[in-house]
Order: sequence, then structure tokens, then C-alpha cells
Amino acid sequence: MAKRPTIAIQGIKASFHEEAALTYFGEEIETLECMTFKRMFEEMKQERADYIVMAIENSIAGSLLPNYSLLQDYNFPIIGEIFLPVQLHLLALPGLRFEDIKYVQSHPIAIRQCEEFLQDLQGITVLEKSDTAACAKEIQDLQLKDTVAIANLNAAKAFGLEVLERRIESNKKNYTRFLVIAREHEDIKDANKASVCFRVNNKPGSLAKVLTIFAQNNINLSKIQSMPVLGKPNEYNFYLDLEWTEQKAYDLSLRKILKYTHNLSVMGEYKSNDTRK
Amino acid sequence: MAKRPTIAIQGIKASFHEEAALTYFGEEIETLECMTFKRMFEEMKQERADYIVMAIENSIAGSLLPNYSLLQDYNFPIIGEIFLPVQLHLLALPGLRFEDIKYVQSHPIAIRQCEEFLQDLQGITVLEKSDTAACAKEIQDLQLKDTVAIANLNAAKAFGLEVLERRIESNKKNYTRFLVIAREHEDIKDANKASVCFRVNNKPGSLAKVLTIFAQNNINLSKIQSMPVLGKPNEYNFYLDLEWTEQKAYDLSLRKILKYTHNLSVMGEYKSNDTRK
Repeated sequence: MAKRPTIAIQGIKASFHEEAALTYFGEEIETLECMTFKRMFEEMKQERADYIVMAIENSIAGSLLPNYSLLQDYNFPIIGEIFLPVQLHLLALPGLRFEDIKYVQSHPIAIRQCEEFLQDLQGITVLEKSDTAACAKEIQDLQLKDTVAIANLNAAKAFGLEVLERRIESNKKNYTRFLVIAREHEDIKDANKASVCFRVNNKPGSLAKVLTIFAQNNINLSKIQSMPVLGKPNEYNFYLDLEWTEQKAYDLSLRKILKYTHNLSVMGEYKSNDTRK
Repeated sequence: MAKRPTIAIQGIKASFHEEAALTYFGEEIETLECMTFKRMFEEMKQERADYIVMAIENSIAGSLLPNYSLLQDYNFPIIGEIFLPVQLHLLALPGLRFEDIKYVQSHPIAIRQCEEFLQDLQGITVLEKSDTAACAKEIQDLQLKDTVAIANLNAAKAFGLEVLERRIESNKKNYTRFLVIAREHEDIKDANKASVCFRVNNKPGSLAKVLTIFAQNNINLSKIQSMPVLGKPNEYNFYLDLEWTEQKAYDLSLRKILKYTHNLSVMGEYKSNDTRK
């Protein structure tokens, strides 16, 4: 029997990162809990992890830009993506009543996603912590009888909590996009999406030229953003996600944009897996 | 004597937000401490604040995307910008020695900016809190003899702490960009920069068309990013910062891009104040 692959996730088991890893790889995996995003990359560098599953954007906060810097720093290739609907519930020790609640704890982004629900709760203190699942675990570990957590159903199951209120997120179409990152380059059959990064020549219109080349070759742009280059006030890294139906057209446009860009990196070529559509 | 304007800031006095407000408005202001970004907008809506000073991007994390959503939701105009160099120091109660340190506390982004320094500290626990200045204040309030804070010099002065180590940020050219937001539209003389937002028609190449129009009119693009529209998987808001030398050319290009965009909002027109250059 083949060894189960080890997947580095941010946060603890029963977190959204674990849910994403299970969705992509199935149940036959080992997960390696990492307290920070950077830690995941260190674990992979030390060969203690085979893959990383990392959140890269969600519909509330947009891109998690520091995670792009990690991709650049460590240079591990992206080999896939996962879109996970974000469903959030209010979890508590069994038997807890609404009037007992003094504290609600969760990750800041999860809190923002439940803002409308939380506005209706009077006299309750909101505590920001770094991991939704850890918030649930703490309630069980410390037997907190005045505290509830905002987390997913896996966390309720894993830590023996009750769902006090279901689906408290304001927008029911929230999602988080995760990237699957490998230690070494893997040839992905039928890749039709790429994440690339480049800088443009410091001439007006260089970026417009690049986007025109992609458009002329029917390359769809599903994301673009600039990020200032540290210490170079007038230079920007551009991060783009590209999608195509014809591999040839993609190859050709990469070749063509080199005239207007520099420091071009293909951070990964993979199969689009946008399950929201 | 005119009433001092009230400026809503995120965090407490002596935070980077207060520093930015003082830089822009001078000393003759009242600051209104708000614990969240959203709170600032609520205070202005209730007419308890005349202006908001809000961080919008920094050289480590990139854009603070949720703050763009707030600008859209409340529709208050941007009237100016401030670039603040981020200088971070290790602060402690007077007399504390390095070997007494058990905890370092600060805002997650400040922590990331001092990563190299922190890597050299062995056996010290890093605590993420929501405000650099509040981390410093807590040390004084609770007389913490085993804890240091990462914060600015204002915080050291305000809360009677000593600088144990100066300039511990990894990159000395870090900065944070803040926006100045008014309750009502103000006509800014000699405006040469705008922050705009739009969606493009769902045709390949629409964004390239828009950028080509700006380039042809010598409008400089100092920022671009896409952000998914909630609940519409294939639609994106694009946030752009534009800079020009000829007002006419800017006016003309806005008129022209309407053919390729919809939901166009000019979030503000103001004077570029990029003090990094």
C-alpha cells in the first residue's frame, strides 16, 4: 500500500483548510497542522509535507496578498485549486441557552461574514482569534459555559459541540478559494488555467499591451492585481490568473508578452476547478 | 475660533492611524478612537466625525481589500492620501532586560514586518493583537514585566515605555498608505489623482480596451486590482488608481471608458501626495 500523502494545512484539524484538503485529496491523507501560513512552506521545505493546501482568496476579504509573497519566496508550484462554500454556524456546549452567551469567538474574516447576525446580539463581546476550529476546541477543552464559536460542522463534530444556530453567514454565496501546492513540479494533464506574475516595463500602456495580447488570443483573465515592489515605489508586481481552451494560444501569448514584461514567473499551471459555476 | 475637526481613526491614540491623521491635518484636531474600520464609517454617518483616516495598503500585506468594500457601502468621498513610513521599535517597561522577555505582542502585520528580528529570539511567544498602540498601553496598564510590544515612538512616549531595540522592521522602506475620507464632497483644487471602481462588460478584452484608453491619454495607472462580486462568480469589480497631468485628458478618458464598463464610481479625486518618491 502506498504511503498516505502528508498535507500541510493552516490551523488545526476540522478547520476549513482541512475540509479543503479532504475535498481535493479524499480521506486517505495525513494532515499536518501549522499555526501560520509560513510554517506550511517551512514544513514542505524540510520535506515533512508532500503538499500544501492554502487559502488564497475569499469573497469578503479578497486576496490574501501575503500568501502570494510566500509563493514567490519559496517557489513551490501550484498544481490545483479548490473552491469551498463557507457555511458558518454558532457552536456551543450542549445545553447552552442563548441568554447564557457572554462571548462569541472566531477568526476575524468569519466574524465579518456573520456581521448582520452579530449586530442583533446585544451585550455580547466578540473575540477575534486566529482559527475557527481552535475556537470550537477551546470551548470543549475549557468547558466554557458562557462562550460560543463561529465555525463549520466538522468542528462541531470533532469537538462535541451543539449547533445553536445554523448558517449565520450574511451572504449565502460566500466561498474561499484554496491553492494546492506541490514540492516538485508535476505535469498536469489538460491544464487550462495558470497563475502568473510579472512586472511591466516602466512605460505607459505596457500593461494594456499585455492584456490586449491575452484578449487577442482568447485567454480569459479571471484575476488581476498589482502589488507594490518593496523598496521600489514605482514598480509593481502583477498577479494574474489566466484561463484558456487552446493550449497553443496560451503558449503563444506567454511568448509574446515577454516583450513588455520582465521577471515573468509561471507560479503554476493546473486544471480550473471552479465549482461555484 | 473654528471648532477643531474630529477625525475618526482605527485603534487608539498613538497608533499609526493617529500619526497619519496628525501628518495630514496638523496638531489642531480631535481624534475619535474606533475599534474597527466599520465603526469609523458609522461614526461619520452619525455625524460624530468630520473625517476618516483609514489605512488602505501597505508594502507587506498589499491592499486592505475589506476597506474598499466599506468605501463602496458608505459612499463617502476620498479627498486625500498619506504615505507613512513604518518604523517599528521594541518597547518595554523601563529597566526590562532582554533575558526577561517571555512575550512579544503586536498587530499581525507589524509582526510580519519584523519577522527576521523575531526569528533570532529563542523561546519567546509571539502574541497577535489588534492594535500596536494598545499593545504598548497594556504593558504600562498591567505593569507587564515579561512582555514587550512592537509599536511606534508615539506609543513609547504616550505610555511611558522604553525603546529596547530601535528599527526592528526587516525592510527599511516599508510604508502604509492611508486615505482621507470626508463626509461630503469637497472640491479639491489641482486634483491629479483619482480612485475609481467599475465592472467591465463580459467580453474578452474589455479591460484591455479600458487600459488602452487610459494609456492613450497619458493617464498613469498606479494601482489595479480585481475583486470578485459577491454571489456573481464571473463578475469582478476593478479598483484603479489613476494619475494625470492634464485634467482634460482624464475627463475625456472617463467619458470614453463608459462604453466598456458599467457601475463606474469615482470614489474620490484628490492631490497625489506620494512622499515616498
